[in-house]
Amino acid sequence: MDTLLLNKDDVHENTPMAELISAIEDAFAAYETGDAQMPAKSYIDLPQYNGDFRSMPAYLDAGDWDAAGIKWVNVHPDNPDNFDLPTVMGTMVYSDPENAYPLAIMDGTELTMKRTGAAAAVATDHLAVEDATSFGVVGAGVQAYTQLEAISQVRDIEEVVVSDVDDEAVEEYVDFFSGRFDVRAGSISEAGHCDVLSTVTPVEDPIVSADDLGEHTHVNAMGADAEGKHEIADEVLLDCKLVIDDHAQTTHSGEINVPYHEGVLDDDDIYGEIGEIVTDAKEGRTADDGVSVFDSTGLAIQDVAAAHVVYEHADEHDNGYEFDLLGV
Amino acid sequence: MDTLLLNKDDVHENTPMAELISAIEDAFAAYETGDAQMPAKSYIDLPQYNGDFRSMPAYLDAGDWDAAGIKWVNVHPDNPDNFDLPTVMGTMVYSDPENAYPLAIMDGTELTMKRTGAAAAVATDHLAVEDATSFGVVGAGVQAYTQLEAISQVRDIEEVVVSDVDDEAVEEYVDFFSGRFDVRAGSISEAGHCDVLSTVTPVEDPIVSADDLGEHTHVNAMGADAEGKHEIADEVLLDCKLVIDDHAQTTHSGEINVPYHEGVLDDDDIYGEIGEIVTDAKEGRTADDGVSVFDSTGLAIQDVAAAHVVYEHADEHDNGYEFDLLGV
Repeated sequence: MDTLLLNKDDVHENTPMAELISAIEDAFAAYETGDAQMPAKSYIDLPQYNGDFRSMPAYLDAGDWDAAGIKWVNVHPDNPDNFDLPTVMGTMVYSDPENAYPLAIMDGTELTMKRTGAAAAVATDHLAVEDATSFGVVGAGVQAYTQLEAISQVRDIEEVVVSDVDDEAVEEYVDFFSGRFDVRAGSISEAGHCDVLSTVTPVEDPIVSADDLGEHTHVNAMGADAEGKHEIADEVLLDCKLVIDDHAQTTHSGEINVPYHEGVLDDDDIYGEIGEIVTDAKEGRTADDGVSVFDSTGLAIQDVAAAHVVYEHADEHDNGYEFDLLGV
Repeated sequence: MDTLLLNKDDVHENTPMAELISAIEDAFAAYETGDAQMPAKSYIDLPQYNGDFRSMPAYLDAGDWDAAGIKWVNVHPDNPDNFDLPTVMGTMVYSDPENAYPLAIMDGTELTMKRTGAAAAVATDHLAVEDATSFGVVGAGVQAYTQLEAISQVRDIEEVVVSDVDDEAVEEYVDFFSGRFDVRAGSISEAGHCDVLSTVTPVEDPIVSADDLGEHTHVNAMGADAEGKHEIADEVLLDCKLVIDDHAQTTHSGEINVPYHEGVLDDDDIYGEIGEIVTDAKEGRTADDGVSVFDSTGLAIQDVAAAHVVYEHADEHDNGYEFDLLGV
């Protein structure tokens, strides 16, 4: 029996974005309704290498389908300088829940970018104004691409403003999307005055203030991924419709972790979890809403849902490389 | 950059047993001296499929080498009947701790058998009589083979007695080893009167009593792997030199879990951990010792140490299949 190996290109080519967004929404719903299992991430800290490993196992039952798997991922900030390797790499094992056979092993790095874009799209679909046509992105790195790819599936995006301190990265982004969108470089404030903004930077301290945002901008705060890091000013978080993906993860290392631990922001300032929104337990955007913020940390159930979509697509189209790993 | 894929046969062929035993001893030592990280196993329970998944991440620094990785493993007892698949399957991702690159992905099932045999050999080396020449095994399944392969590396085994309710399994075992050992079928008591005994059965209730053992038999109790399961009678455990691999794991699901939770056996009945023995913090067998028992649950650090040995051997001999999974 074979396990399907899917490399970076395979994952890219076998991710139909509309299906992925739907699967990620299903995953958020399953988590909310108790039809998912997601043990806390396990960390292995290696200060001698300035790095860590994280294991992210999960299972979810979306009704029509279920899926299990684990992502083994790291953060080694010295990798680009010392090894010409990315800071973050991931390996995903996707298993049949019924008998545990490893159906596929795939590049978890590309998968992470895809599912992160899809999560922003789910939040945007429920929290941005219906007639949103403009999208801003702060940070023009690899994550910025899947943000636009995904969000343009749920809103009819025409105008795009990209902001980054790295002019070359901005230029690449503009070039990449110029055939499909009216895309230009701009300031953080110009990006923030779009209908939808995604922040995908590695900054430690906030770079988006209240003045940088439009009256009804929906913000996907994707960048914060460790204790002490945040991208959005406290004043914005305290005055917006604030939606998180998971309380434990976001108070540990998400966008709100700093003001939460300083006591500036508490649970009363959190409107709800994305799972509550997608299951209609709580309303998404209403006519009265101003700025909304989705604080996304990235959940293991997203990886498993994404792996499900990629595997099914690759299997159906005979993509990937079959390998008899287990000899059973 | 490529990741080395090692299937079942590759793992088998790239496991020099003497090196593996040494690496497993290093792993036990690193765990004892605080040079290993082994987060608690995460479980995903799927009662609807009568199965579960377990994730076992670990890192260890053995001084000359270090290693990181994760094993994703399951227990689905209905697999043989329903899917013609093994109850337990494992997938191992072996990573470079310095930059987290996934150096190899390998069959974790074969790896588990190898490292389990090696753990018994480490314990046997420290706890069996020096001049042991006879080996008994209760249970003639797949795990029974690596027990003898490994233990015969640390003692000059000549005579082997195999005991199982399945005559066919006994016959296969005898046939397999008859060229190398004086091997025969026997009762539990005959196996237990050898110098070294390994129990590798799936029984729930004890099948080895005090009368079944010789005066100085060293017992490797390998079979118990879940709450409520044990192979050795309480009277033996209470009256022996009892060595465990890990307190949390064994009191949860190892050989002593039943008497421990019944209050029949407590911490005072445990002589020590295998890590204490291999680092000489506590003595192994002494002239005064009678029966000794090693209660092995199987640790994630064993898997990582074994993956290190297999990867290094395969890499050196150009074995396995190279695959560019991450595209970096």
